[in-house]
Amino acid sequence: MDRAVLEDLAAASRILVDQGVFDAAGHVSMRHPGSPDRFLMSRSLAPALVTADDIMEFSLECVSPAARDRKPFIERYLHGGIYKKRPDVMAIAHGHSAAVIPFGLVTTPMRATYHNAAFLAAGVPVFDIREKFGATDIVISSAEKGAALADALGDKSVLLLRAHGFVAVAPTLQSAVFRAIFTEVSARVQLQAAMLGGPMAALDEEEGRQADAINLATVSRSWELWKSRVT
Amino acid sequence: MDRAVLEDLAAASRILVDQGVFDAAGHVSMRHPGSPDRFLMSRSLAPALVTADDIMEFSLECVSPAARDRKPFIERYLHGGIYKKRPDVMAIAHGHSAAVIPFGLVTTPMRATYHNAAFLAAGVPVFDIREKFGATDIVISSAEKGAALADALGDKSVLLLRAHGFVAVAPTLQSAVFRAIFTEVSARVQLQAAMLGGPMAALDEEEGRQADAINLATVSRSWELWKSRVT
Amino acid sequence: MDRAVLEDLAAASRILVDQGVFDAAGHVSMRHPGSPDRFLMSRSLAPALVTADDIMEFSLECVSPAARDRKPFIERYLHGGIYKKRPDVMAIAHGHSAAVIPFGLVTTPMRATYHNAAFLAAGVPVFDIREKFGATDIVISSAEKGAALADALGDKSVLLLRAHGFVAVAPTLQSAVFRAIFTEVSARVQLQAAMLGGPMAALDEEEGRQADAINLATVSRSWELWKSRVT
Amino acid sequence: MDRAVLEDLAAASRILVDQGVFDAAGHVSMRHPGSPDRFLMSRSLAPALVTADDIMEFSLECVSPAARDRKPFIERYLHGGIYKKRPDVMAIAHGHSAAVIPFGLVTTPMRATYHNAAFLAAGVPVFDIREKFGATDIVISSAEKGAALADALGDKSVLLLRAHGFVAVAPTLQSAVFRAIFTEVSARVQLQAAMLGGPMAALDEEEGRQADAINLATVSRSWELWKSRVT
Repeated sequence: MDRAVLEDLAAASRILVDQGVFDAAGHVSMRHPGSPDRFLMSRSLAPALVTADDIMEFSLECVSPAARDRKPFIERYLHGGIYKKRPDVMAIAHGHSAAVIPFGLVTTPMRATYHNAAFLAAGVPVFDIREKFGATDIVISSAEKGAALADALGDKSVLLLRAHGFVAVAPTLQSAVFRAIFTEVSARVQLQAAMLGGPMAALDEEEGRQADAINLATVSRSWELWKSRVT
Repeated sequence: MDRAVLEDLAAASRILVDQGVFDAAGHVSMRHPGSPDRFLMSRSLAPALVTADDIMEFSLECVSPAARDRKPFIERYLHGGIYKKRPDVMAIAHGHSAAVIPFGLVTTPMRATYHNAAFLAAGVPVFDIREKFGATDIVISSAEKGAALADALGDKSVLLLRAHGFVAVAPTLQSAVFRAIFTEVSARVQLQAAMLGGPMAALDEEEGRQADAINLATVSRSWELWKSRVT
Repeated sequence: MDRAVLEDLAAASRILVDQGVFDAAGHVSMRHPGSPDRFLMSRSLAPALVTADDIMEFSLECVSPAARDRKPFIERYLHGGIYKKRPDVMAIAHGHSAAVIPFGLVTTPMRATYHNAAFLAAGVPVFDIREKFGATDIVISSAEKGAALADALGDKSVLLLRAHGFVAVAPTLQSAVFRAIFTEVSARVQLQAAMLGGPMAALDEEEGRQADAINLATVSRSWELWKSRVT
Repeated sequence: MDRAVLEDLAAASRILVDQGVFDAAGHVSMRHPGSPDRFLMSRSLAPALVTADDIMEFSLECVSPAARDRKPFIERYLHGGIYKKRPDVMAIAHGHSAAVIPFGLVTTPMRATYHNAAFLAAGVPVFDIREKFGATDIVISSAEKGAALADALGDKSVLLLRAHGFVAVAPTLQSAVFRAIFTEVSARVQLQAAMLGGPMAALDEEEGRQADAINLATVSRSWELWKSRVT
């Protein structure tokens, strides 16, 4: 395993803290570059503190053969569930940023308020854990819950979890970070636009598709800046 | 008295500043670990400046036998009143964070907008000092006012003080800090959800109970991060 | 002149930047401690950069006998106008903080949302320069404009300037700083309460009077903290 | 070419990051001081990282004769289009700040909420790229798009780009930076005023004209402060 891969994954965790998406919680993972049936994710730790040495390896069943004395996040099932159902997904971020949670509580759908949030234009579903599991502690703590969540995500890039947070998925680690950041920023923009009232001329699906392609092609310019702030 | 206890209590004060819950005011206390009829609390001082040496010891009547030349907070009666009526409460935080105050001014009840705010799902009462004491300077400056406030809190975890601030109580110091922080964050989320309008699918009581148990069990992960930022 | 007085006045300027009330503009003044017919105020300079050496002395006509090569703020007339009409006022702060400006643009009156903003409970008038002077550049650039502004202030502690900013006055420098800060914070709280809708149980006049007395008596605790951050 | 000019242009880029107007994207340009048919602009780079060595020179057709291995921003066409049609414009800033984007999505016009935003009083048009180009990736990626955008700007100082961001133009680099900053601040103020509801007594056109003249004459006081923070 290339050490630089682990360092990038750890940096992704710290970037999402630095950019105000993660607080004392939140986790980001990536599919193993060489083995599509495994994924990499930090041990249970505040995301600001994650380093390459904290990265563990999991099967898609969320078992870590080499866990040693490291305690994994319970919510690794959220990641495993998605990697199983979405072979195109190479990285996943999950957090509880404050501007996004409201959209999981009310019926207003999230929109793609500008080109940086283009990946939202295809639609943002909401996963309500109550529908299948009744009253729970909200945590995605089992393979069954992870699978139900992955079903709710479908083929989209972002899923809201009712009274919990969001999941952003992407074809690369850099773009998963980008999507997590601009999910939060776009939510803030939409909340402010809602204050003004009236219809909202957000990106339509076709604009979203085209703008997203540009974002994916140019993400490294943002990534380099974000990474320089946390390393 | 274990010095580490005093240092944790002082750190709690600085954590609540660092996390944006306290400003130039606010205070946190804990029940004496060895003597349930006493509590520990900083002398009157901006919470950002509190160190272990500033911690004083009070009886539940809010008398400090060893005050020396240290001036206590007038509002220690808020703490004493609660410790008297709530033997389960081991720590208390009181502040005036900006997103929480609105909920003490209007009739909209606070809700538990996500799992981190699960302790709000049982309900958040409002204490209006006018009802019993008429026009005052708002300060909880006597045993009578402290007792009335403790009555208003009842068996809940958070109490709003009209035109003043909030109180968060918990079975440990770490969870009192956690609850103070997520009272503020959840208030911000609820304000944003209110902008969008419509019903709000917040945690119900049973979800709140279950999620709160998880929070209490995992609070040390957040605490370690928060503490590392102020020590 | 005691050097410490000048240093406190310069610190007040930097405090108001540090606390988010001033940006690249804003100025604070105090009546001369020994000569009630003069006042002290920085030369024209970004408030973050003010030091004791930048303080100039003005007559109540806003003339500086010892200006040397230092350029005064045009808006010293705002200060002079108030010192002339309000012998009780010993210090004045004027800024353009973002949450306060809206209340000068619409008809919703500012309220005292909590005890720290008690000085607002007596009422917050709005000065519209158009009423007397027609279309202007908004700047309080003459003795006539300063006098009209002082008339609008009346016996209150805070005045809003339409499409411009606010003025806070107080019996001491420390409390002028306190009032400028909590005018901004209370405005933010009121904006958030307005999002929730319904009537607002702000402080009434009598509560405001009583709570303000406590604030004036305890302001040094906040001042020491604020000052320690900028010196 | 005077090195100080390049350093000021690079500083302008970093100032707009420091002041919260640019994030990982955004660019600022200026007309060549000696050759009105050329303009200066950074190579494609996160604006926080721009130094004098990153500045490239372009013809008004957006061709860089001395590009060497430096990759220009695609959106240089936005700048070229404006410099061609507006000989009075000497500097341009383009960004995606969060409080401004809502005004490009809804029908509420931006207003000049206070004297610092006086340049908005003349009116703020919105450019919707769909009207002429149908569904696109939103980027101003050709001379045709740049020209259409310049047409939409007309003789104004600020243009909103639907689902994208804003452009601020000015007769000097310092005032372009000033206008970009106070476009964002005024948008925040207007959003907050909208929460309160009712009519808004913003600056009228004549007040805006007069106040803008003062801003242009005094901008160096702000510029010196802003520059000192990033150099």
